[in-house]
Amino acid sequence: MDNRKIRVAITHGDTNGVGYELIFKTFADPEMLELCTPIIYGSPKIAAYHRKALEMQANFSIINKAEDACDGRVNMLACFDAETKVELGTPTKESEQAALKALDCAMTDFRAEKFDVLVAGPTGAENIVEGQVSFPNLKQYLETSIGDGKHGVYMLLNEWIRISSATDGLDIKDLAGAVTKASVMEKMHCVVESMKRDFRISNPRVAVLALNHSADGAEEKEQIIPAVNEMSEQSMTVFGPYQAKAFFGSRHYDAFDGVLAMYADQAVIPFNTLSNECGVSYIAGLPLVCCSPAHDALFGIAGKGEADEQPLRHAIFTAIDIFRNRAQYDEMSANPLPKLYHEKRDDSEKVRFAVQRDKTDLPPKGGNRKHETESKAQN
Amino acid sequence: MDNRKIRVAITHGDTNGVGYELIFKTFADPEMLELCTPIIYGSPKIAAYHRKALEMQANFSIINKAEDACDGRVNMLACFDAETKVELGTPTKESEQAALKALDCAMTDFRAEKFDVLVAGPTGAENIVEGQVSFPNLKQYLETSIGDGKHGVYMLLNEWIRISSATDGLDIKDLAGAVTKASVMEKMHCVVESMKRDFRISNPRVAVLALNHSADGAEEKEQIIPAVNEMSEQSMTVFGPYQAKAFFGSRHYDAFDGVLAMYADQAVIPFNTLSNECGVSYIAGLPLVCCSPAHDALFGIAGKGEADEQPLRHAIFTAIDIFRNRAQYDEMSANPLPKLYHEKRDDSEKVRFAVQRDKTDLPPKGGNRKHETESKAQN
Repeated sequence: MDNRKIRVAITHGDTNGVGYELIFKTFADPEMLELCTPIIYGSPKIAAYHRKALEMQANFSIINKAEDACDGRVNMLACFDAETKVELGTPTKESEQAALKALDCAMTDFRAEKFDVLVAGPTGAENIVEGQVSFPNLKQYLETSIGDGKHGVYMLLNEWIRISSATDGLDIKDLAGAVTKASVMEKMHCVVESMKRDFRISNPRVAVLALNHSADGAEEKEQIIPAVNEMSEQSMTVFGPYQAKAFFGSRHYDAFDGVLAMYADQAVIPFNTLSNECGVSYIAGLPLVCCSPAHDALFGIAGKGEADEQPLRHAIFTAIDIFRNRAQYDEMSANPLPKLYHEKRDDSEKVRFAVQRDKTDLPPKGGNRKHETESKAQN
Repeated sequence: MDNRKIRVAITHGDTNGVGYELIFKTFADPEMLELCTPIIYGSPKIAAYHRKALEMQANFSIINKAEDACDGRVNMLACFDAETKVELGTPTKESEQAALKALDCAMTDFRAEKFDVLVAGPTGAENIVEGQVSFPNLKQYLETSIGDGKHGVYMLLNEWIRISSATDGLDIKDLAGAVTKASVMEKMHCVVESMKRDFRISNPRVAVLALNHSADGAEEKEQIIPAVNEMSEQSMTVFGPYQAKAFFGSRHYDAFDGVLAMYADQAVIPFNTLSNECGVSYIAGLPLVCCSPAHDALFGIAGKGEADEQPLRHAIFTAIDIFRNRAQYDEMSANPLPKLYHEKRDDSEKVRFAVQRDKTDLPPKGGNRKHETESKAQN
């Protein structure tokens, strides 16, 4: 944490989408360069094409390797030489390949510690195809590339909510089988760890949603409730399962630091409905901090100058915050003092957020989210 | 449609919830009595208890049968004599029975044409239990009581969206099997008919959501897409299936008169997330117009005077509007002239809202919803 500016690698995303437009708009504000040093993993030629198509002012310095990046400039790293035809508004094999080449290049540089955090530009396809291997999403690509065997969890963030899912984009027919005590606990551990290390919330309160509309199906009774109980025994402040419709209808999420939904749409639909103006998608649990705007490449408005750069800007801010939080957390927990007293947990919260199972669901009253800044590891 | 005021039956709902509070607050505004003549299906004793507990001013005229109801008064019909203990904030067997007795009484009076529309007060339990028969919800209760073999469809309405579901509150594990071409088409026909007759939209545009997160699973290909295609061939302006996360993220619902979700949570979660301040739940497709506030009995705030009466007020407005629309529609379509020309359908909308299946989903641009007031039946 010396005075060096944080280096943010930004991949250009699908080159037929709004990636470059978002980057140009974001760095049109000179204060952004006070905050960080961006390295755009892309192609100067494609960038120039977008700049012309958008009739925008945008300055960037072309570099050939990441170590040449200078503070105070928008560094444009040429990731590949191949000609790539830009067809604004339509994802093509070529544009998807261009997005992937930029990611591949960034992965190589991350292993060589040439930047601090990654912000991935928006892509269109759900699938990232590399050679003959198809990745269902960016998370699995990163897990495979630099995960060291770790598994990440998608976390969607905006100003109201942080929400993850216990399962990833499965088809509905496979859902009930995939929601198991083990899968819920694995994701919950990852979410809680991320709250502590990435967001510096020393004792995060996390809500678990029910899988079924009625919130009292077989999966709740056999899988989710035992998972919540076991985590409570492990001294995690985990509550639920809550019926999803009431949870969002009564804004109960205001009372929690994080939410674990049971399937992707249960997380993404309310998140997108709340707002996608500043939504950020973060992949928690990996050695690399990777954020991206919580939207796709917006092909419908590509090249029209209508895209809003706020989600990309928030993705950069979030990545920087998490990087700093991790550094502080790791420093503080590196040499812990021996405990001088046994921790006494106050049970009042458990009563307050408890789900009354035998009666009709009595949801908790909304409370204030506490962002405690002391690290638990200090005790 | 003479000058007689519309008679609105309002059941008191779960007597330990906020039903009476909403009723008192709604009719505290004297203009409400200009609009309609309310008949509260409830209990004067319980009403008096709530009035005292809430320390509210509330006048009502006690009547013993619905035909005694007077215009300009809040008519309180005594549905039962039995003593009912009120325990504010906790649903009990007694309070659920009280809710049911009021509904039973209203059903009897509806068959005798003693009122025009029904507004059901909020209940807490998902299940309505009558004798040994358990109804999963109000819709099934009404279908059984006065449906004449017809099946209704829940429709949630607020100022932004009208949304229904192709399946009712099933557990996730049973969903994939229940989403069939037949079930989608049955619900869609009901939604389209309701748009025409209840909302007087002559050629409603309806969006169908995909079941799966990816929007290209087996159910989309084998059931939903064939259903949409067949309905298009039947000259219905039905579009989709749309990926739910993008549909809500980009506010595509602004372009449609109605939306058909595939499961209850897919409809209720975004609906509640958008707002539950003026949300109304309407049961389309039945002979009786029945609306209710789109929330439960709010036990958490019962007796505190904090409940917002806007959803009940909107439920009354919506029921009256639908009753008038139906009367106009039926009058207009009673003696149709023979068609003088063959209808020529403009295909431009189909192109505009088409889902591009072989490419990445290119969603439609938001358009203006047209509320065409001419009835198609006039042509």
